[in-house]
Amino acid sequence: MNAISSVGLRNSLRIFETLMVKNASRVEIANELDLTKTTVGEITKNFIDLGFIREKEKTHDSRIGKPQTLLEIVPDAFHVAGIGILRKQVEGCIVDADGKILRRKSKYYKSFDYNSIINSIFEVTDDLIAGNRDKIDAIAFGAPGTLDSKNGIILKPAKFLEFENVPLAKIFSDRYKVNAWIENDADVAAIAEKYYGKGKNLNSFISIHMEEGIGSGIILNGEIHHGEYGYAGEMGHFLVKDNGTFKYLEDLYGADAILERTRMFGIPDFESLKKAEKNKDKKVIEFLQEIGEEVGAVIVSMIHLTGISTIFLGGKATYLGNTFLNSVRSTIKKYLFYDHEVKVELSTLGDAFVVALGASAHGRVKYVEKVLKK
Amino acid sequence: MNAISSVGLRNSLRIFETLMVKNASRVEIANELDLTKTTVGEITKNFIDLGFIREKEKTHDSRIGKPQTLLEIVPDAFHVAGIGILRKQVEGCIVDADGKILRRKSKYYKSFDYNSIINSIFEVTDDLIAGNRDKIDAIAFGAPGTLDSKNGIILKPAKFLEFENVPLAKIFSDRYKVNAWIENDADVAAIAEKYYGKGKNLNSFISIHMEEGIGSGIILNGEIHHGEYGYAGEMGHFLVKDNGTFKYLEDLYGADAILERTRMFGIPDFESLKKAEKNKDKKVIEFLQEIGEEVGAVIVSMIHLTGISTIFLGGKATYLGNTFLNSVRSTIKKYLFYDHEVKVELSTLGDAFVVALGASAHGRVKYVEKVLKK
Repeated sequence: MNAISSVGLRNSLRIFETLMVKNASRVEIANELDLTKTTVGEITKNFIDLGFIREKEKTHDSRIGKPQTLLEIVPDAFHVAGIGILRKQVEGCIVDADGKILRRKSKYYKSFDYNSIINSIFEVTDDLIAGNRDKIDAIAFGAPGTLDSKNGIILKPAKFLEFENVPLAKIFSDRYKVNAWIENDADVAAIAEKYYGKGKNLNSFISIHMEEGIGSGIILNGEIHHGEYGYAGEMGHFLVKDNGTFKYLEDLYGADAILERTRMFGIPDFESLKKAEKNKDKKVIEFLQEIGEEVGAVIVSMIHLTGISTIFLGGKATYLGNTFLNSVRSTIKKYLFYDHEVKVELSTLGDAFVVALGASAHGRVKYVEKVLKK
Repeated sequence: MNAISSVGLRNSLRIFETLMVKNASRVEIANELDLTKTTVGEITKNFIDLGFIREKEKTHDSRIGKPQTLLEIVPDAFHVAGIGILRKQVEGCIVDADGKILRRKSKYYKSFDYNSIINSIFEVTDDLIAGNRDKIDAIAFGAPGTLDSKNGIILKPAKFLEFENVPLAKIFSDRYKVNAWIENDADVAAIAEKYYGKGKNLNSFISIHMEEGIGSGIILNGEIHHGEYGYAGEMGHFLVKDNGTFKYLEDLYGADAILERTRMFGIPDFESLKKAEKNKDKKVIEFLQEIGEEVGAVIVSMIHLTGISTIFLGGKATYLGNTFLNSVRSTIKKYLFYDHEVKVELSTLGDAFVVALGASAHGRVKYVEKVLKK
């Protein structure tokens, strides 16, 4: 095959990504992606030759009137490890080319120095690989930003500074002899939402990932939106006024800041917070309403700026219950400048594993890109 | 010609837009837009057949080694009227296909009822057309949102409610027997910045338009970003805290709110405010610093969310001088979460005419689209 053009590469990846969401016929793909049938035919032939996709049984599409051959991803075409580097633990999984989870593994860091963290990541990766019947073809990471995803370097991760300036991709590609990529944790959480969660058939949405940092991934016309300096969606660094002083949102309502406040009324962790919300503990309810108002106000500004009106709340947000969710919703309803539908829902993908899962989906796309560029 | 495909239409418009910025050879266009030479050849041939573009003298590109034929837009291919509907006046111009301004006209509304406003717009349009040697082929408007640009209806314009639910495009296409389109005022100001101002060779930037409303147009990869409900960039509806209560930014620092404050120290309009800033009037300086901090803090949040780091400040911002600009810049420098270059500059396109100018550029693209779709 000749060197692929950048247009051809982009179209190829869009087709593979479409098949990551669902099996589809060539005609359906052409319609959905606004490509000619010739282009789709050429690209899918190439993918079939590579062994990445194959024809499935025929289906009958009543609009077209004749049976269509569905295309599907070949599960064993390749295997990818997805690793989520969180601030307290590492989460990992291995998936096949079609996204089925083959193995999972996680580990809390023993301490928070660089060596302890990197060794935990090695252990999880070793264990994932050792238990997988086939070798893996790539590793992809989700990690707190800022990071240089082009060169695979974690730069200056907020609230995780022991892991500053780590050339993660190189360390792992050297050790495991496979390609490795990194991406922002909130971005891969949004990618997970797109392939496994509530974002499956949506063109545009914002996925908010509330941990110690509060990030968001912006899916715009089916693609993750990247800024000019390797970050975007940094809602945790929205400026909000606290007693007349500007503070970052995540310094007031990041997971650590929330627990610092709840400890004052005897609640040490998010599981206990979840229980207290269910038991309608008055102080807890008031505090959760406050978080909902402040985070909700930032979401209003985000909706007004982006014009995107589907929002998923993930990470530790899933522990804050309906009190928080309803407070976010009523704040949006109160302040939306123009009356239209806004959908705000909690993610159902879990608070920590979602980063590993999203990283694996990102890795599948990056691996296909790598092969096509060869 | 066969019905154009949506891919073909998009590529055609991208090529025309490139020539709206500068004359370029087919090879340069292909490289810049990442299109094949065949595609560029077919599309430019079609434009030449339509009489929209023509070959200019040959130039020598040292990287390619042989003379390249430059393409340029044929100025008299069509004429478009651009009309800016502001809250106190209407501004208008006629431009040729290559964007040269042939006529200008403006008029303050006598009163603020619907009839007075629409008659002022008719007068300006009549006068523009009467004085133009050729007939015009289209009219495009920039107006305060929200609006339904697809159907040409002004819906619910903030601080301009006498002009609610006005089917502007239909009124003008009926009266003048030409196509008419409308677009958000801040969006067309950004379009003006792209074709006439500091955004000429930039891929992504945010153009802020400070009037009674504070809007912004987001240019993302060369295209204006539209939200799902016909708005985006609504920074005037960012929520900011004022004495513990959420307010919209534009209710605190829109042009009318600014003058309400300055009247308390005897300054009735923006010209006087500009003079007072130059004379270093202490109260004025303090107030301008306050505006710079509050608007600057919102800009910080916008940069963090979009990852876009080139910002132009237009509209009434151009009257607020270096005191305001420096306060915005130092606020950004203070709170940017990750150290990188940010460019913040005042627009040089003027505070009111920019809407008419941007509308005319928008109208040129819409007119070409209309002809291609025929």
